[in-house]
Amino acid sequence: MRKGIATVSLSGVLGDKLDAVARAGFDAIELFDNDLIGSPLSPRDVASRCADLGLEIALFQPIRDLEGVPPERFEGVLHRLRTKLGVMGDLGATTLLACSNAGADAVDDVDLTAEQLHRVGEVAGEHGVTVAFEALAWGRHVNRVGQAWEAVTRADHPAVTLAVDTFHILARGDDGTALAGVPGDRIGFLQVADAPLLDMNLLEWSRHFRCFPGQGTLDVTGVVAATLAAGYRGPLSLEVFSDVVRETDALVTARAAMRSLLFLGDQLAHAVPAVERDLVSAAPPPAARTDAAFLEIANPAGDSDVEKLFGALGFVLAGRHRSKPVTWWRNGDAHVVLNDGPGPPRSPHATALGVSAPPVETVAARAAALLWPEVSTTRGADEAMLPGITSPSGLHVFVSDTPGHDDHWQRDFEPVEHAGVGTWLGIDHLAISVPPHQLNEETAFFRTLFDLAPGAPEEFMEPHGRLRSLALRPADGDLRVVLNVSEASAEAPYGVTQVAFRCDHVARVVDELRSRGVPFLRIPDNYYVDLVARFDLAAEDVARLRHHQLLYDRSPRGELLHAYTDPLATGFHVELLERRGDYDGYGSANTFVRLAAQASDPAGVVVGS
Amino acid sequence: MRKGIATVSLSGVLGDKLDAVARAGFDAIELFDNDLIGSPLSPRDVASRCADLGLEIALFQPIRDLEGVPPERFEGVLHRLRTKLGVMGDLGATTLLACSNAGADAVDDVDLTAEQLHRVGEVAGEHGVTVAFEALAWGRHVNRVGQAWEAVTRADHPAVTLAVDTFHILARGDDGTALAGVPGDRIGFLQVADAPLLDMNLLEWSRHFRCFPGQGTLDVTGVVAATLAAGYRGPLSLEVFSDVVRETDALVTARAAMRSLLFLGDQLAHAVPAVERDLVSAAPPPAARTDAAFLEIANPAGDSDVEKLFGALGFVLAGRHRSKPVTWWRNGDAHVVLNDGPGPPRSPHATALGVSAPPVETVAARAAALLWPEVSTTRGADEAMLPGITSPSGLHVFVSDTPGHDDHWQRDFEPVEHAGVGTWLGIDHLAISVPPHQLNEETAFFRTLFDLAPGAPEEFMEPHGRLRSLALRPADGDLRVVLNVSEASAEAPYGVTQVAFRCDHVARVVDELRSRGVPFLRIPDNYYVDLVARFDLAAEDVARLRHHQLLYDRSPRGELLHAYTDPLATGFHVELLERRGDYDGYGSANTFVRLAAQASDPAGVVVGS
Repeated sequence: MRKGIATVSLSGVLGDKLDAVARAGFDAIELFDNDLIGSPLSPRDVASRCADLGLEIALFQPIRDLEGVPPERFEGVLHRLRTKLGVMGDLGATTLLACSNAGADAVDDVDLTAEQLHRVGEVAGEHGVTVAFEALAWGRHVNRVGQAWEAVTRADHPAVTLAVDTFHILARGDDGTALAGVPGDRIGFLQVADAPLLDMNLLEWSRHFRCFPGQGTLDVTGVVAATLAAGYRGPLSLEVFSDVVRETDALVTARAAMRSLLFLGDQLAHAVPAVERDLVSAAPPPAARTDAAFLEIANPAGDSDVEKLFGALGFVLAGRHRSKPVTWWRNGDAHVVLNDGPGPPRSPHATALGVSAPPVETVAARAAALLWPEVSTTRGADEAMLPGITSPSGLHVFVSDTPGHDDHWQRDFEPVEHAGVGTWLGIDHLAISVPPHQLNEETAFFRTLFDLAPGAPEEFMEPHGRLRSLALRPADGDLRVVLNVSEASAEAPYGVTQVAFRCDHVARVVDELRSRGVPFLRIPDNYYVDLVARFDLAAEDVARLRHHQLLYDRSPRGELLHAYTDPLATGFHVELLERRGDYDGYGSANTFVRLAAQASDPAGVVVGS
Repeated sequence: MRKGIATVSLSGVLGDKLDAVARAGFDAIELFDNDLIGSPLSPRDVASRCADLGLEIALFQPIRDLEGVPPERFEGVLHRLRTKLGVMGDLGATTLLACSNAGADAVDDVDLTAEQLHRVGEVAGEHGVTVAFEALAWGRHVNRVGQAWEAVTRADHPAVTLAVDTFHILARGDDGTALAGVPGDRIGFLQVADAPLLDMNLLEWSRHFRCFPGQGTLDVTGVVAATLAAGYRGPLSLEVFSDVVRETDALVTARAAMRSLLFLGDQLAHAVPAVERDLVSAAPPPAARTDAAFLEIANPAGDSDVEKLFGALGFVLAGRHRSKPVTWWRNGDAHVVLNDGPGPPRSPHATALGVSAPPVETVAARAAALLWPEVSTTRGADEAMLPGITSPSGLHVFVSDTPGHDDHWQRDFEPVEHAGVGTWLGIDHLAISVPPHQLNEETAFFRTLFDLAPGAPEEFMEPHGRLRSLALRPADGDLRVVLNVSEASAEAPYGVTQVAFRCDHVARVVDELRSRGVPFLRIPDNYYVDLVARFDLAAEDVARLRHHQLLYDRSPRGELLHAYTDPLATGFHVELLERRGDYDGYGSANTFVRLAAQASDPAGVVVGS
């Protein structure tokens, strides 16, 4: 199938958009009329530029409100139509999108709509143009795909077809079954967009929050599958507008768009019979399970305080890399790798996450197919293959096999023997702070590459702004990633801002760490008074939490006890948490307390500096 | 009346909020429980800090969902209540806000609600606390003020009163008449907030878009007037949360909040009988009419190209300031003042707007009462009094009397005689670009000080982002100001980005200017093809528009012809416009073409550099 994208989905001026779209591998565009009107390129210039770039102008959308028009004004519509058909002739475009009338004065009369669509079809047909009629979700009278199909049927003209738009169908609560009985050759165009579920005005939702498949939560796959099952074989074309794409570089958006089509192909592989499946290229499958393996800290200046810090945290040296200035530290099943190799002159910070996600080669091939950029690394002879992929926010993710296999990361280290290796249970989760416009793309990275599923977005008040948060985890495996967008300040630090380790007996662990000089966030006394109001806890339990300065949460499934260090020399703070029972969250109810405590004491004591 | 504000309306941590509120002149606060819980200050510390600052803790809001609770869980509510009443004792707070139950499991039974409120009243009463019950607009069963009043009446306990919140009442489409028959001594609290009219989920609307009275469009005055008419004499307390206040300095917000109460007093002066009017202090009245008088350009380096530029635009030297290095230039009734005086080393730019708004002294007194900062200027003996006020975005606005009066700005200039002075009709409007978080405040400046009314917000797509636009104008007078927020780039230039002059025969004017070397924005040919489609214009009319590179718009009331220069050496571009008939807009339909043309040719030719 041809892969298309609407020019309105990209930022910039028309010439730049065409270049970006072609470079990302698309072979079709929908031309947004305002992009043409505002461009110094004539329609013939645009046609020849597109031909040079291998792009078909698969759709043109120059007129709104051309059915359900009060009869005395319909001649005006035909005047506009004829003018725009002239432009289409110069463009070499043969499909025109007609949206249902959204005007306040639209006439509620399906016979009139059918008659006007028929007339539009006649005029368009004379110019060799086919009309695809779409039910806008906010159309005045025609706003569901079933109504549009009825109008197309009644219009009864070969040049009048149905346009399918996943957003408009799903936004109204319909799904693929709404296309039952529609023959594929009567579907003139397929527009694809996803969106997060938001309870708001449909037009505003569509205008500001559409996103590419895989970035939202609508069942785009179902509607596309139904359209293919009907026999539609035209382009699969992305029409996404949002505050984000308008501010993002066109080439970045075009790549994200192409990736979303590959992801869609992936989803379709499970949803449709083989005959349609092959229409959309799919990438190699994701790993069956993904676990957190290690965290890598870059220490380009070889600052010895970083080793001291991990010592204070209870980590012990477990191995030395066979060919690089890299050491492996562990506390039980929590693993950290310190990289003293050269790098940009920066203070120590988390640069990479190691995950266990076999088979390694397949994940690497999937990353390449999805256009995620590879980390360039050197690999010594006989060392493990640890393909690295860079996330949009710049985090390197290295993919390892499981223990005992050749491509397990620990194989590259010369072990150091120890009496004890600590008792921690592992990396619980990593919080990554990303700029607002990068949240969709960073989400897509973990979702498309590792099949992590996003939970419900959460929102917190920081003392100086708003914090939006999205947690992701796989169906199988213990990897948890939390993406944060802070709107408190444009100068917020990006990257890994928090590393949570899981342990048993967090109270004891916190005491030990405190005795070794690790500074913990001070929790206000008022918090413990509020705990008494919120939960039916025994006074001595609250006193104990307060003594250890632990935060507490409870769900029907279990309990969470957790504590935060002050910011450390590594640029992040460490959270220690104890999950009791099947508690599965992140202590969201306590987030505002942590944020306020951090703001009250922003300097903190930085261990190791 | 006491003036209060909710701590949730301000950014920062509790201690900073209290300081800001006191400095802005408030004498009461509503304490947001999360602010307390996240604070290292104990309740007694907070009480003593407030006492020192002259702040009463007029309201505390520690519990959600305390009526309509399934009976088996009501004991838990009383447990929470008792704990929080203990905190209130330490705080010295005696009014507790109770919001209607918004939980999915709230019970729809007014008798149960009344019985539980009665019980809550009993427990609160034992602690000397009064409960104010509020209908949240998104309450599950109780969401209109009439329902809340019915519940309060049925609860029949002296410690259970009604809370009035302007947002919740107006958001549901109610108004002040909903309070008919409610005795003032049964109204326990009055919370005040405004909002722009938005069609969205009520909770999201409330959370992100509330604003201070005078910044939105709800009839806050009507509800406050009705509450006062009922006999309520408690605090008038602002409860505003939004994305903007969370990111703005607490002191700036506190001042904007205090100003909004003065503005509200102003509005009430027209709305209620004298007895209630005196309860809220009002500022001196605004001018009866406000006209644009002149634009001032700072030219700190004395760059002679700026004079050349205005010469090319058809301005002639009209006078020299008697005591300052300032010259007055005019083209017909369009006046520009060039200030060669010293200033920060910057390229030439528009720094001030002169307006004619008598009586000058009253406007100055109004500015002072509304806490708008005065411009510090020197004034020669016998010179006009031109009070200057600085807008939040930094624009100086100088207030002049009308011609022939002592305080008319032209009196300070020694006239220069000329044969001709040009034919332009005056300054049509000024476009000011402000940062996103400053739009509300800049709007409030023109609205509260000069009584300009905002039109409907408009939104445009720029090639690299979104442009939001708000036009303001007075009921009488020709001043028009357009405030723009560009989300295209964090580095967008702020300040006066466009100056529109009105003229007759814009085609001739543009030709003359072009012949004198003024560069105009190149309009794409495609635009003229689209004009043919949109309007029934004669071919020769379109050819003429295209020849002169004019943009065109039409409304039922008239026509607009306009053209834009490239960016000039003064940092803004000039728009020339001809209004035909009663055309009253700004050519919004052409904005995307201008933005695209500017992006296609971002460098432009800068006259004078």
